Amino acid sequence: KRLREYGAKIGVLPTGKENAITDVAGVLVGQVTLQQGQQVRTGVTAILPHAGNLFQEKVPAAVYVGNGFGKLAGSTQVQELGNLETPIILTNTLSVATAMHAVITHTLQQPGNEKVQSVNALVGETNDGGLNDIRGRHVTEKHVLEAIRKAAAGPVAEGNVGAGTGTICFGYKGGIGTSSRKLPANLGGYTVGVLVQSNFGGVLQIAGVPVGQELGRFSFRQQILEKADGSCMIVVATDAPLDARNLERLASRAMLGLGKTGGLASNGSGDYVIAFSTHPGLRVPYETKDKTQTMTLLRNDEMSSLFMGAIEATEEAILNSLFKAETTIGKDKTKVEALPLDKTIDLLKKHHVLNP
Amino acid sequence: KRLREYGAKIGVLPTGKENAITDVAGVLVGQVTLQQGQQVRTGVTAILPHAGNLFQEKVPAAVYVGNGFGKLAGSTQVQELGNLETPIILTNTLSVATAMHAVITHTLQQPGNEKVQSVNALVGETNDGGLNDIRGRHVTEKHVLEAIRKAAAGPVAEGNVGAGTGTICFGYKGGIGTSSRKLPANLGGYTVGVLVQSNFGGVLQIAGVPVGQELGRFSFRQQILEKADGSCMIVVATDAPLDARNLERLASRAMLGLGKTGGLASNGSGDYVIAFSTHPGLRVPYETKDKTQTMTLLRNDEMSSLFMGAIEATEEAILNSLFKAETTIGKDKTKVEALPLDKTIDLLKKHHVLNP
Amino acid sequence: KRLREYGAKIGVLPTGKENAITDVAGVLVGQVTLQQGQQVRTGVTAILPHAGNLFQEKVPAAVYVGNGFGKLAGSTQVQELGNLETPIILTNTLSVATAMHAVITHTLQQPGNEKVQSVNALVGETNDGGLNDIRGRHVTEKHVLEAIRKAAAGPVAEGNVGAGTGTICFGYKGGIGTSSRKLPANLGGYTVGVLVQSNFGGVLQIAGVPVGQELGRFSFRQQILEKADGSCMIVVATDAPLDARNLERLASRAMLGLGKTGGLASNGSGDYVIAFSTHPGLRVPYETKDKTQTMTLLRNDEMSSLFMGAIEATEEAILNSLFKAETTIGKDKTKVEALPLDKTIDLLKKHHVLNP
Amino acid sequence: KRLREYGAKIGVLPTGKENAITDVAGVLVGQVTLQQGQQVRTGVTAILPHAGNLFQEKVPAAVYVGNGFGKLAGSTQVQELGNLETPIILTNTLSVATAMHAVITHTLQQPGNEKVQSVNALVGETNDGGLNDIRGRHVTEKHVLEAIRKAAAGPVAEGNVGAGTGTICFGYKGGIGTSSRKLPANLGGYTVGVLVQSNFGGVLQIAGVPVGQELGRFSFRQQILEKADGSCMIVVATDAPLDARNLERLASRAMLGLGKTGGLASNGSGDYVIAFSTHPGLRVPYETKDKTQTMTLLRNDEMSSLFMGAIEATEEAILNSLFKAETTIGKDKTKVEALPLDKTIDLLKKHHVLNP
Repeated sequence: KRLREYGAKIGVLPTGKENAITDVAGVLVGQVTLQQGQQVRTGVTAILPHAGNLFQEKVPAAVYVGNGFGKLAGSTQVQELGNLETPIILTNTLSVATAMHAVITHTLQQPGNEKVQSVNALVGETNDGGLNDIRGRHVTEKHVLEAIRKAAAGPVAEGNVGAGTGTICFGYKGGIGTSSRKLPANLGGYTVGVLVQSNFGGVLQIAGVPVGQELGRFSFRQQILEKADGSCMIVVATDAPLDARNLERLASRAMLGLGKTGGLASNGSGDYVIAFSTHPGLRVPYETKDKTQTMTLLRNDEMSSLFMGAIEATEEAILNSLFKAETTIGKDKTKVEALPLDKTIDLLKKHHVLNP
Repeated sequence: KRLREYGAKIGVLPTGKENAITDVAGVLVGQVTLQQGQQVRTGVTAILPHAGNLFQEKVPAAVYVGNGFGKLAGSTQVQELGNLETPIILTNTLSVATAMHAVITHTLQQPGNEKVQSVNALVGETNDGGLNDIRGRHVTEKHVLEAIRKAAAGPVAEGNVGAGTGTICFGYKGGIGTSSRKLPANLGGYTVGVLVQSNFGGVLQIAGVPVGQELGRFSFRQQILEKADGSCMIVVATDAPLDARNLERLASRAMLGLGKTGGLASNGSGDYVIAFSTHPGLRVPYETKDKTQTMTLLRNDEMSSLFMGAIEATEEAILNSLFKAETTIGKDKTKVEALPLDKTIDLLKKHHVLNP
Repeated sequence: KRLREYGAKIGVLPTGKENAITDVAGVLVGQVTLQQGQQVRTGVTAILPHAGNLFQEKVPAAVYVGNGFGKLAGSTQVQELGNLETPIILTNTLSVATAMHAVITHTLQQPGNEKVQSVNALVGETNDGGLNDIRGRHVTEKHVLEAIRKAAAGPVAEGNVGAGTGTICFGYKGGIGTSSRKLPANLGGYTVGVLVQSNFGGVLQIAGVPVGQELGRFSFRQQILEKADGSCMIVVATDAPLDARNLERLASRAMLGLGKTGGLASNGSGDYVIAFSTHPGLRVPYETKDKTQTMTLLRNDEMSSLFMGAIEATEEAILNSLFKAETTIGKDKTKVEALPLDKTIDLLKKHHVLNP
Repeated sequence: KRLREYGAKIGVLPTGKENAITDVAGVLVGQVTLQQGQQVRTGVTAILPHAGNLFQEKVPAAVYVGNGFGKLAGSTQVQELGNLETPIILTNTLSVATAMHAVITHTLQQPGNEKVQSVNALVGETNDGGLNDIRGRHVTEKHVLEAIRKAAAGPVAEGNVGAGTGTICFGYKGGIGTSSRKLPANLGGYTVGVLVQSNFGGVLQIAGVPVGQELGRFSFRQQILEKADGSCMIVVATDAPLDARNLERLASRAMLGLGKTGGLASNGSGDYVIAFSTHPGLRVPYETKDKTQTMTLLRNDEMSSLFMGAIEATEEAILNSLFKAETTIGKDKTKVEALPLDKTIDLLKKHHVLNP
């Protein structure tokens, strides 16, 4: 069960219907999980801002680098032009090239793109080499295309799935997690949705409760640095009409949510946040005869509620990735246990996050 | 009393001796408090990386912009050259110019600087206009020079003092706060110290406990955005031998500590982090015949423990600013209450942060 | 006479009517020149994006840092919020604080700003300490307010005027220079105007002609680094409807224009570019009940012609600053000669830039 | 023949022995050219900072984004950690993924890297889709590995070779070009070498001479924007002991060299500069028991001569790419002519760059 199903709340803002990134209208998620034999524990997660031709109808987007020890492809064009023209793909560190290749194939083949000669694939990763034979590069172009094809609205599978199949978080099994916030009408009524691939360390806190310390599993415990490295890919979607500058600001707030779970963005982390707006009025046509574009944008002054939403949804998405992940035995018989939920629930009760 | 005097701990790393930025050897802090009549509640806080001639012996430094709705002066030269050549001054928003002028005066007058024609004053601020007649610009050059002159090692006054005299945090009286972490020997043994000028909003959490919600005072409570704006200046000192690149990385982690107190870096915030290293081997001489400089720097791989230290010390410094602040009546009889400590302690007990 | 009056052309795009930053409708320039006795050679140049209340009606803006060895105040707020709320002031290095103070005074006093408690003054500088007793800080608040008050449309005084009174460029007397480009109608018809405060070194080229080498005065001539330091403040105005992201891109192109004159953005340079759009439809109201703002923006695809305009106008503005500057004797009887125009014209003829 | 063989000089600093990036001791360049049938005109250029195991002995490095309309992979890790751990590969836009994959293969297979699970491939590109069937993605992993294997010191092939096989520059055939500067002993004696993949437009100037205008071929000629798009990848090597911060500063100066050839960094350009230091004392070991590293670094104050060197060498490298490129017929019988050298030489004589 997800964190909220136990009765816990993160933050003060209400969630969207599914408490998922897909609460942002139009967003689709597709995942392919690779669990082959003992050695392969990896996969692909695809996030599509809309169901149409993304290259022809780009969306405003931004990338924020929390800590750049990672291989995110495609960031500089997003930052320069302020838009995104492909699905976002998450996978493992050594399969970024394969995913890029597949995204290019996908884009070149889409009807209407017959003359396209330039494609900026946005591909992120974390390193699942603890449980997965990452050097084997088992993700193929076909897997990536399948994830794109399967992308759908509605509930999103979490835990050991897609790009989260082999990841580790706070010493426990991590994975894919998602959450959303729907602002009250007088704060604009917008939705912010977050999806994470959790694969990092630190000192786990759940709704403020020092679960990592209580369970005796946290970085720095032995006065040595353990289990701190790893990475977190964070995707933030919103239907609020934000331009690239405000999307970058929104993206940076997701790191505060990561911090609230006990993450530290360690030296070895590749912590990146990709943010985009699905607002239909902000689509950027690839080609048009118009030299200008008229758009209605949210004012700076209205950003703070969205910031809060991104912080809360990121915190909860990471926690969901832990709650939904399952104990996994993988490469070389390495075993990574799931977060012990019974003990965790007891701790949440002890600390009055759940009613005792 | 400070938070830790009640028995609460923030994080997992030990503090330095004074639990203050001055635990970083060589760092001096000087403060001038202006409480004049009913209208003036402001002041100056000066942080000196060392007691010598800072212009002649610059220190490695970096600036990280958490949210740039602020008037920090001097940031671009620090970012370009990677060093700091003056005391750091904190004051109110409309007195930055006065403080710059004073820092220049200070530097031009120091023995050895008789021919200096260029001075990069690093001056930060938050807006104390809620309690202070900020438009009156009551800080004078003399106040700033006095703060520099009074700078000393040892314990640092917190709460309604210096640049924190008139600030407001989470709807309660904020102010100056400080904290430090001393890494265990096998993590390098370095010290990280933080000083904050707290003046921002959000949903207050203390050691993970949702104090803001429990007390019924937090942003978004009425489904409207209240008390979220404001700013936080954060100064991070360390004796670890870090170059400007790693200092910038360290600086960015302080924002995670702010997030853990419930801050969101709202649209209207000027949230800046200034980080510097006091390591004697890294001083940058203004003039020298040498074309190169030999230095011993910490490797990237050793940064994570310092990151954790900066996060923890920032969180605790902000909380100390609240614990030490006192109810204040200021401009136009505006009253801002101190955090109600009795109730807060009860909440920390209820949530098992303190023994019940 | 200005460069173009001799018949030389820079680049391929036509100029605006006055070949000045004021060709961008609404832009006003005011200058105060301080030549007192032998020691004082400095001043103030104010650039106003429009004649109204800038704080109440902010303009989209960006800052690009070419080389940050400088004291530009106000940059981070412009970068965060994407707008500008005060006149831009240029002056000498040690008078930035005075200018900030004056800009705050100006803003607080404007009708309608009675309750304003936060002002982001944007103040740039170069170091005129070669000809000016810069340590004396002779610029007063009154001078700055006078420059703002005198700001006017139409032709702009160049050379030894305002903030350019004491500056040195390529070893010759530099100063204020300006130029503009008006795009042909089918490239959008927009105007780009540039104003510079030239105070840097390198290997002077005029319309491609190696004048510095021909005259035997250039950095690196003696196989030592001479006369390379100094700075260049560059202000780029346009009436094209650009948001902050595209204004930042436009700003960065100005550095290519500086490079074409032979500048190198040396270590000691404070080379900053401030860009803003005067388009009336993009004004950002300080306060409004609207949560969104509808605006019509130029598409990325239309930026290249503006980039070219900014490059050409910057190059020509720097050259105009040299052509209009006059030999100056200043501090401690230091003499800096004007560019020898007769010889220069001969060289332009020899190299077929002018008809022989 | 290269530009300098005609007697022309660019700038005021002397070149290295080969006037090539390989003048920086240790740098190796390998190229594979693909000219298959009528449709395929592309290739691969590999630049290796040293001949050893780059992953085990990383080099200080930086990336500067001139204009980010490009697909450069690997930039964020270089920026975060300040070092480079693989060969740099240049190829065409749609083959970046293939090159990344190959670089990972290369690194995983190197002796000593048996346990490596994370590789940051640095791969740049420009779009040769005018002459090359770029959608066919004809570059294979084998081609990339071959380019790495063939990498050698000494003279570097220029023009229609490697990643420059199908590129177009200023409307003429572009390609690979290289140049270097060797500073005089009293400026430090260091070497700066540059290699470019030229594929951009603008208004061509050669040694200041307006060749594009004289030949009637330049962007904006018809008052419409023609031939301005495209990109330029620039690699800057130096043996000066620079850390990542100063390498980033050095990298940014290369754009001034591009500007001096008449480039504008148009909207559609992917203009990136990668800079690295080969200084043996600055190698960053992948693993070591040492927590610190002692290094001798050049002071900021000594950077200006290197800046000049990077500007000059970039300008000359671009011009060499044009001088050495040959008329090419490619995809769909598209013909792109080489720069007409006879006419160009006449123009250089007319303008007194060459003796008449």
